[in-house]
Amino acid sequence: MGAMTETLVHPERSEIQIEAVLQALADPVRLRIVRELARIGCDGVACGAIDLPVTKSTRTHHLRILREAGVIHVRPVGTSRITTLRRDDLDALYPGLMNGILAGVG
Amino acid sequence: MGAMTETLVHPERSEIQIEAVLQALADPVRLRIVRELARIGCDGVACGAIDLPVTKSTRTHHLRILREAGVIHVRPVGTSRITTLRRDDLDALYPGLMNGILAGVG
Repeated sequence: MGAMTETLVHPERSEIQIEAVLQALADPVRLRIVRELARIGCDGVACGAIDLPVTKSTRTHHLRILREAGVIHVRPVGTSRITTLRRDDLDALYPGLMNGILAGVG
Repeated sequence: MGAMTETLVHPERSEIQIEAVLQALADPVRLRIVRELARIGCDGVACGAIDLPVTKSTRTHHLRILREAGVIHVRPVGTSRITTLRRDDLDALYPGLMNGILAGVG
């Protein structure tokens, strides 16, 4: 139950740092998560619903880095977690950044 | 003379990888270099002309990471090096990315 009851810290929009955002995105697994969240849209997705070739603990690690950088929002719902891209915050802070990253195939 | 005669490797546009670009940009000193190059524009700048609170070897290290990621182009001219942002390549590959990063103050 520990993992379900821990506090999920999210930076406020004003606390988001560009270096942390870029660091969080500079990883193939995390980019894949972000692209999948962008594709799915704003209704959110249970973490497990994103197909990733990594273990659960690795997935948890990557989601934490994205969350702490301000890239995603994670909301516990029952025994699941609903994950959404903080597109509004990122677009307001760095207009074009997410579009560019999502457009890039490299 | 060694540093002046070494081959400066630059990835082709098709070889540029988003993870390497983001990793290269995810550093305060390198972000500062990139923002300064963007401010100066396309005529290029001798590396030493960018005021940075770091040693020469640290500066060289950061410029190499940016160059190898495909973010900047470095051209030896006499005993200097002219450094330019590869804005055309980055805008073609990741439209909006550089705008977003340059807009961000965080």
